[in-house]
Amino acid sequence: MTRSILALDFGGTKLAAAVVTLGERQVRSHRRVLSPPNASATTDLEIVRGLARELIPGELAAIGVSFGGPVDASTGTVRLSHHVPGWENVPLADVLAAEFNVPVSVDNDANVAAIGEHRFGAGKGFNSLLYITVSTGVGGGWILGDRPWRGAEGMAGEIGHTVVDPTGPLCLCGKRGCLERLASGRYIAQQVQEQLQNQPERGKILRTLVEGLASITAIEVSQAAAQGDDLAREALQKAAWALGVAIGNTANLINPQRFVLGGGVTKAGEFFWAEIRRVARATALPEVHFDIVPAMLGDEAPLWGAVALAEEIAS
Amino acid sequence: MTRSILALDFGGTKLAAAVVTLGERQVRSHRRVLSPPNASATTDLEIVRGLARELIPGELAAIGVSFGGPVDASTGTVRLSHHVPGWENVPLADVLAAEFNVPVSVDNDANVAAIGEHRFGAGKGFNSLLYITVSTGVGGGWILGDRPWRGAEGMAGEIGHTVVDPTGPLCLCGKRGCLERLASGRYIAQQVQEQLQNQPERGKILRTLVEGLASITAIEVSQAAAQGDDLAREALQKAAWALGVAIGNTANLINPQRFVLGGGVTKAGEFFWAEIRRVARATALPEVHFDIVPAMLGDEAPLWGAVALAEEIAS
Repeated sequence: MTRSILALDFGGTKLAAAVVTLGERQVRSHRRVLSPPNASATTDLEIVRGLARELIPGELAAIGVSFGGPVDASTGTVRLSHHVPGWENVPLADVLAAEFNVPVSVDNDANVAAIGEHRFGAGKGFNSLLYITVSTGVGGGWILGDRPWRGAEGMAGEIGHTVVDPTGPLCLCGKRGCLERLASGRYIAQQVQEQLQNQPERGKILRTLVEGLASITAIEVSQAAAQGDDLAREALQKAAWALGVAIGNTANLINPQRFVLGGGVTKAGEFFWAEIRRVARATALPEVHFDIVPAMLGDEAPLWGAVALAEEIAS
Repeated sequence: MTRSILALDFGGTKLAAAVVTLGERQVRSHRRVLSPPNASATTDLEIVRGLARELIPGELAAIGVSFGGPVDASTGTVRLSHHVPGWENVPLADVLAAEFNVPVSVDNDANVAAIGEHRFGAGKGFNSLLYITVSTGVGGGWILGDRPWRGAEGMAGEIGHTVVDPTGPLCLCGKRGCLERLASGRYIAQQVQEQLQNQPERGKILRTLVEGLASITAIEVSQAAAQGDDLAREALQKAAWALGVAIGNTANLINPQRFVLGGGVTKAGEFFWAEIRRVARATALPEVHFDIVPAMLGDEAPLWGAVALAEEIAS
């Protein structure tokens, strides 16, 4: 009889579940829904339980969970969600283990994506890497010595709040010039909106992609940049510079083999990657080598990472 | 019969050897000499061999070696010395193993000091730490998960060449605002010498500690600062700020339990430590905790680290 892995993704705005036959590499079944308006931990859990019950066909071996927020991976306890109320100190692994009667492993989405890329994606065959997501925010997850490195408190990987430029603009966290303040989708979009308002002659391509300035996100900025838009390119050039400095610094400090970059902002085209690579190379010592490559699993990274998490504990 | 560990330190300007009874924590015998003028790899090796032969009393279990320069720790091969010519690609572990017929482990001085502090010093009982030496240069060594983390190429720990301020002064490495450029003894001394020349009314305490401006090193600057000298304090305040930013960034990125700081510059007194701690705390996320403590082993860190290295391989 086939034994299955259940992979769950509590993504903040999306909830997903997938079933994979233990040891196989294809999703057998998959459900994804948007988190409802006024979602809470209770409604999120109820929805995911429902998805899971629909999917599970036979004997379950283990459950892996990606959670969009800080998690104590050693106990599988969610600390909180930045999107959905009620998740404070929810012992998610225990809740699911009690319900499904199998071992459960839970980690935050950046770590899980790193694990997924390492096992199944752009990090396969590399024993040390930093996965960086450049999306609404900037986060990261480590693989060191072929294993996740989560840090003393599960907080490792917060490259988004390393300071790249101490004289830079103020970040929500209170510091100046954090990588997240310089390279995240939220701030890129905000900056570009302001510039489009003040410089009516610029950003012609970008303007054709959106209905109104307020609806611009970093996705459109990246698309416009890939098509050659001047203003979009300028904004992304600066983001790429900040990413390059942070990556070069990290290479000197930890000397991993590889940096794997995912998230919407990284779709900005070859000039964006070239600038990141140029600045990272100039920032790292000549003796320190590494490569910088796109993530391969895209939106599926949390689910595949959850599969990898679950396989580790499947009995 | 007692079995011994031989610990060797090729320090660039100093050469040392010590013998410790396997499993004990006291040095049984110890020799230290200055590297001669016009030293080469050949003369350094000859001197250390002589010291070792004098010291070894009975059965030798293993040899641990601290080397002042980049080393491939996996093979025990020295890549080069920044101080002494002729060390390019010397298979030091093999050379010593052939001569003394015991297992030999070699690593660079920052890693070895980290291992020493972790096993015997300020890092005892902590499973993740970064050791930082703030001396002529700034270097570092990692312990992650109770083991040395050397990186993909043995280059991990180069916190001295992480960029703290991209608009800062030019470093020897070609970048601007490296931690080493802002906080190392070499640059602190250089800056203070220039200021003393241009500002004859300042640095009164510091001037009493030295014969001539050219002889000032960071040691005197730190001593003067500890005694309240205004100009010395100002220089060290800036160094402490840079260390605080680099440590806070590293805490976010790796989340180690502890930072252990050694080297002459760290003798600057409580105001220096308070500034490092204040800035590191402000740079790290509120959820990221760590402490910053002085190294305990001082100049003995390489020898004790070499003992720890040797104990791991002692058969």
